[in-house]
Amino acid sequence: MVEKTQWAGFKGRLWKEEINVRDFIQNNYTPYDGDESFLAGPTEATNKLWGKLQELQKEERAKGGVLDMETKVVTGLTAYGPGYIDESMKDLEQVVGLQTDKPLKRAFMPYGGIKMAEESCENYGYTPDPELHKVFTEYHKTHNQGVFDAYTPEMRAARRSHIITGLPDTYGRGRIVGDYRRVALYGIDYLIKCKEEDKANCGCGVMTNDVIQLREELTDQINALKGMKAMAAAYGYDISEPATTAKEAVQWLYFGYLAAIKTQNGAAMSVGRVSTFLDIYINKDLEAGKITEAEAQELIDHFVMKCRMVKFARITSYNELFSGDPTWATLEVGGTGIDGRSMVTKNDYRFLHTLENMGPSPEPNLTVLYSSRLPENFKKYAAHISVTTSSIQYENDDVMKVTWGDDYSICCCVSATQTGKEMQFFGARANLAKCLLYAINGGVDMKSKVQVGPAYKPVTSDVLEYDEVVAKFEKMMDWLADLYVNVLNLIHYMHDKYYYEAAEMALIDTDVKRTFATGIAGFSHVVDSLSAIKYAKVTVSERDPETGIAMAFKTEGDFPKYGNDDDRADDIAVWLLKSFLDKIKKRHTYRNSEPTTSILTITSNVVYGKFTGNMPDGRKAGTPLAPGANPSYGAEQNGLLASLNSLTKLPYEWALDGISNTQTMNPDALGHDDSERVNNLVNVMDGYFDQGAHHLNVNVFGKDKLLDAMEHPEKPEYANFTIRVSGYAVKFIDLTKEQQMDVISRTFHDRM
Amino acid sequence: MVEKTQWAGFKGRLWKEEINVRDFIQNNYTPYDGDESFLAGPTEATNKLWGKLQELQKEERAKGGVLDMETKVVTGLTAYGPGYIDESMKDLEQVVGLQTDKPLKRAFMPYGGIKMAEESCENYGYTPDPELHKVFTEYHKTHNQGVFDAYTPEMRAARRSHIITGLPDTYGRGRIVGDYRRVALYGIDYLIKCKEEDKANCGCGVMTNDVIQLREELTDQINALKGMKAMAAAYGYDISEPATTAKEAVQWLYFGYLAAIKTQNGAAMSVGRVSTFLDIYINKDLEAGKITEAEAQELIDHFVMKCRMVKFARITSYNELFSGDPTWATLEVGGTGIDGRSMVTKNDYRFLHTLENMGPSPEPNLTVLYSSRLPENFKKYAAHISVTTSSIQYENDDVMKVTWGDDYSICCCVSATQTGKEMQFFGARANLAKCLLYAINGGVDMKSKVQVGPAYKPVTSDVLEYDEVVAKFEKMMDWLADLYVNVLNLIHYMHDKYYYEAAEMALIDTDVKRTFATGIAGFSHVVDSLSAIKYAKVTVSERDPETGIAMAFKTEGDFPKYGNDDDRADDIAVWLLKSFLDKIKKRHTYRNSEPTTSILTITSNVVYGKFTGNMPDGRKAGTPLAPGANPSYGAEQNGLLASLNSLTKLPYEWALDGISNTQTMNPDALGHDDSERVNNLVNVMDGYFDQGAHHLNVNVFGKDKLLDAMEHPEKPEYANFTIRVSGYAVKFIDLTKEQQMDVISRTFHDRM
Repeated sequence: MVEKTQWAGFKGRLWKEEINVRDFIQNNYTPYDGDESFLAGPTEATNKLWGKLQELQKEERAKGGVLDMETKVVTGLTAYGPGYIDESMKDLEQVVGLQTDKPLKRAFMPYGGIKMAEESCENYGYTPDPELHKVFTEYHKTHNQGVFDAYTPEMRAARRSHIITGLPDTYGRGRIVGDYRRVALYGIDYLIKCKEEDKANCGCGVMTNDVIQLREELTDQINALKGMKAMAAAYGYDISEPATTAKEAVQWLYFGYLAAIKTQNGAAMSVGRVSTFLDIYINKDLEAGKITEAEAQELIDHFVMKCRMVKFARITSYNELFSGDPTWATLEVGGTGIDGRSMVTKNDYRFLHTLENMGPSPEPNLTVLYSSRLPENFKKYAAHISVTTSSIQYENDDVMKVTWGDDYSICCCVSATQTGKEMQFFGARANLAKCLLYAINGGVDMKSKVQVGPAYKPVTSDVLEYDEVVAKFEKMMDWLADLYVNVLNLIHYMHDKYYYEAAEMALIDTDVKRTFATGIAGFSHVVDSLSAIKYAKVTVSERDPETGIAMAFKTEGDFPKYGNDDDRADDIAVWLLKSFLDKIKKRHTYRNSEPTTSILTITSNVVYGKFTGNMPDGRKAGTPLAPGANPSYGAEQNGLLASLNSLTKLPYEWALDGISNTQTMNPDALGHDDSERVNNLVNVMDGYFDQGAHHLNVNVFGKDKLLDAMEHPEKPEYANFTIRVSGYAVKFIDLTKEQQMDVISRTFHDRM
Repeated sequence: MVEKTQWAGFKGRLWKEEINVRDFIQNNYTPYDGDESFLAGPTEATNKLWGKLQELQKEERAKGGVLDMETKVVTGLTAYGPGYIDESMKDLEQVVGLQTDKPLKRAFMPYGGIKMAEESCENYGYTPDPELHKVFTEYHKTHNQGVFDAYTPEMRAARRSHIITGLPDTYGRGRIVGDYRRVALYGIDYLIKCKEEDKANCGCGVMTNDVIQLREELTDQINALKGMKAMAAAYGYDISEPATTAKEAVQWLYFGYLAAIKTQNGAAMSVGRVSTFLDIYINKDLEAGKITEAEAQELIDHFVMKCRMVKFARITSYNELFSGDPTWATLEVGGTGIDGRSMVTKNDYRFLHTLENMGPSPEPNLTVLYSSRLPENFKKYAAHISVTTSSIQYENDDVMKVTWGDDYSICCCVSATQTGKEMQFFGARANLAKCLLYAINGGVDMKSKVQVGPAYKPVTSDVLEYDEVVAKFEKMMDWLADLYVNVLNLIHYMHDKYYYEAAEMALIDTDVKRTFATGIAGFSHVVDSLSAIKYAKVTVSERDPETGIAMAFKTEGDFPKYGNDDDRADDIAVWLLKSFLDKIKKRHTYRNSEPTTSILTITSNVVYGKFTGNMPDGRKAGTPLAPGANPSYGAEQNGLLASLNSLTKLPYEWALDGISNTQTMNPDALGHDDSERVNNLVNVMDGYFDQGAHHLNVNVFGKDKLLDAMEHPEKPEYANFTIRVSGYAVKFIDLTKEQQMDVISRTFHDRM
């Protein structure tokens, strides 16, 4: 058993025998069931720094969304010396460390794809160093090039026609949460020692490709740990040994996270479940009288400020998919332990309180791990933050705990992974709405009129027959699942080869569990279309004169729609999820990863919709798909609770990567004042989550406010006006006009 | 079936249906059984160019072995514009193309290992560009770094103690012979088309790692083919289409080979079996009156001149292993077809004749594929070249044909591979002499006194007991074979990852057969030591006082030795080969390659010997091991034929990678004049090879000449004095003093 002087006063044994942060937390945290009255406001330093940062953000927006970009230095742990929000105020920063040398300056990250890196510079008027072009085309292949070198024509066609889309083939796959707490708890030297032991025990001696690959990865991880020490040293910190104080704990942990965001540009770069862990250090210092509550809050405010500053260079088409410059610096509060204790600490309040101390913000993507068994005070405080800021989301701790235990982190918008024990092969989505149209049209794409899917026999009758359509859809889904899984196998092979996440994986167990996260887009439209074919009469109303494929449908008669708590439609939804997952599961997956799926689309529902034709449910060609697992726009006829009930029927175990649901409630529908709204919201969520639903994005505002913000983005009250979209939050004024319109066209529940 | 105008007049069908150079040759070559009287002397252009080249070679030697080195430009197909032997005489060059921009200037090749590339520069007083250091350490990992990142401590120890040695972990593995004839016969565009078809047919759609890897490799190959076109275009040639004339055929083929030596720095970079193929084009032009014999010879002379110019940047320790700056530009003549026809053409004479037109030379490593059924005239001409130049080697076509058919190439010194259908994972050697000592000493190394092998029970009795030693040796060999195969698995995984031979593999079938070429060093010393233990009395005469391990042996009584046609010793030799191969074969090999082994050591026998202790056969610690499958120095007591007879007992099928035998005969022992010597040599070889032996290096000179050359290297007659060492030829004066002494101490047969 290892003993460290920095651990004096901490209880427990197992976490000293092995790397086990969960065991440390369970042995040392102090649950809190009081209310928010202990919280402190922002310090002067916080106000100054945040003021400065807001100026920079304003400047950034004025410059078209990017303040500054690197064009010469290739990103790396030690590519830069220290950087500060403001050199003249650097002593005010309780938590230091920037991705580059300047705040909000975006790093040059070529490993995912040199074209993307260069294009992102050019999109914003910067000219990347031509020497780097040579290095990353002639000498060093990038992930993107590797992928395209191996793609089949069929894969390219599927990608081009957007039936499979949003693939991480030009940038980092993200969705890997290093256990950044390990840096604070153990110090880097101990982590290196453990990785060296793992390397010594890697394989029985037979050098199969798997063993060779892992041995090389372990060396890369050890080098990354050494790099983290050098990076911290540039800021004057020696992180070889464990953190001693709360301030050090926050700083050490942030250095771990900083290593990730300096070296990778994944769509989602989550922070993880750090709140309860950090509370242990803060509590210890508070009890010892070393810090005040104001100082504790300042630490969290400054840490959160850093999370608000995470930036990556992106290209236009990426921004269309994921609007508003999100980074998914997802960070959890709340949750309960396997032993039944609430894991809410004062620190969970402090994290939510940052939205009051520094105003609303999309990042970090604050996520409440919800259970009706959480302390009432905390549920109310979270609901209060939702009602006043619309900046946070909720996920069902009770259902997630079954699979992931009580130390999982959300690695993207809504997907759980066991912290420090797991990684995810991110898989974006298959557009099942398009797949249904392929089934009807024998694999011919309605938009391009090109044969993309296999040339199976199309539906030739004018009236669509349910059994025939379902049989053809099953076949086409089988083709799509096959292609989709193989595309992902290829992408993740190349990602490991050209863009391995050494810094993140260094903070994860060597014997890592890997999930293979596929996803579904167009969910509600498939359900409603099949329901229309089954319960109403759907006729092909227009055929393309050349190819003969169906281009439009006429639907006569009424039919049940998903989102109304009607089993006739909801049963189709359940069948669809299960059917797709089964088809995914039966296939070979890279590194024997475990196949999962999700029903979440982020903001990409708009782009996906553009490439999807008319559907039998009445959705018009080119219009946005409903986001995530949301019912189709206009389908919900029976109020919020009926809509939520439909969602709860989808078994979370069949969509372990997450089922995203975004709802907007008119403040008046929730109650007459904030207190009533808070109580009602807590009641709604208790009921919703107790039924087993997975996720809820909560927005509390009316359509009028959005219309006004769209018209008058210059109004000061809209500068930080944040809304929840599918799986993350954005500043409304950062959305494209098209996406603003999409949000406005969604259902605003005026009644429960 | 494809038809090309350039193919007018060529017979056959299958080679037009698929890429099949063998079928083209068999349908179109003209056997020749006449004598050498048709041959033409050097043209004026040849004399001028060769004169210039000899000046450069002299200058090179004066500068310590290297004329010029690149320090800024990373090698690549199009890294340079055109280069010539002498800009002012460039019109004289019938075959153009240099590795860099200047003759004998060595390219900067970092992909195998940046350290090696830099060290080789520094060894010769050049300073490599620091920017390239950054690129190939921070951005791009090299093969060498990948290997060392994955090595186990046990592997490092085995490497350090030289029980496994000569591993290709810092430079190219070589031993891959692209079918360079394809460039001439088909032109690049058709080759690209075929590779694109292969890519379309690569895998059934399931993206396993194997399929993904191959798909990426195919893209790299296609890009390399495009690069070859661009490279040739810089010299004013369009090689998209097949060659039309003999001159084009030689030039196109050379461009294929040039692509290999511009991009890879393997120890062995063979040219392959090109003679009969090129004869078809030359014969066609001769018959059409387009060229004269003098012009035909000029083409071959100039092609061979280019092969004599191949250079790589090497480091000191490499030169110690492989002395005399060899490149193994191995090129075959002779051989017979499966249909029984001799494949000797006039061109085979022309290639041998280059040694007369331009004097002796170690490169290209000219190899006669020998059979007693070859035309008598040709056998005599080859023997004549041996007697007068000692520059060529012989390999048994009759035994090789059984496994490799009639279109194999020698990919290194003596190892056969089917041309265009096969590649080799080169594996260097395991030192079985050292392994025997480990068996006696329980895995402790006699030189370092360190535990390198497993700590099995050592021999503790003073008198060595045969059965006990053999049982322990079997166990220790099992350990060594296991470690050795795993080291090679790891090396070849990394080589494919960081230093893939795209240009060579582009000229090989996609469905390539891979051999896994292990090797044995110290063969004769193990055999003789075991024989001594069995038939004489071997006592441990000295033990290390600290570790107790045996340090020296006293051998009393006589015992049979390998190399005297005595079955008692030779049976042990056969057992040893089979036993080692069986232990190799039972293990997992990278890419399911086929395990083979060899008994050949090149000149590395000297370095291997340095690290090998005293042995029971009487060999002293630190002295050179006998090279290849040669009997130990001084062991041969019964003349040349008895020595050769011992060799013939080793089944070639158990050492498909080759059994190398180097013999030196006193001219007087062979006969009183050249004609008698030629006849006797032919008789010796007929007998030797008819018994199934694999290989023979033939040297015809006396010890006096070597001693004189060592004393007076400045004498003009020694400038090009070439000798055959183990598997290749060197200029004697280019050997280190130590290696010269080793050659001198070998057996010079004074009687048959």
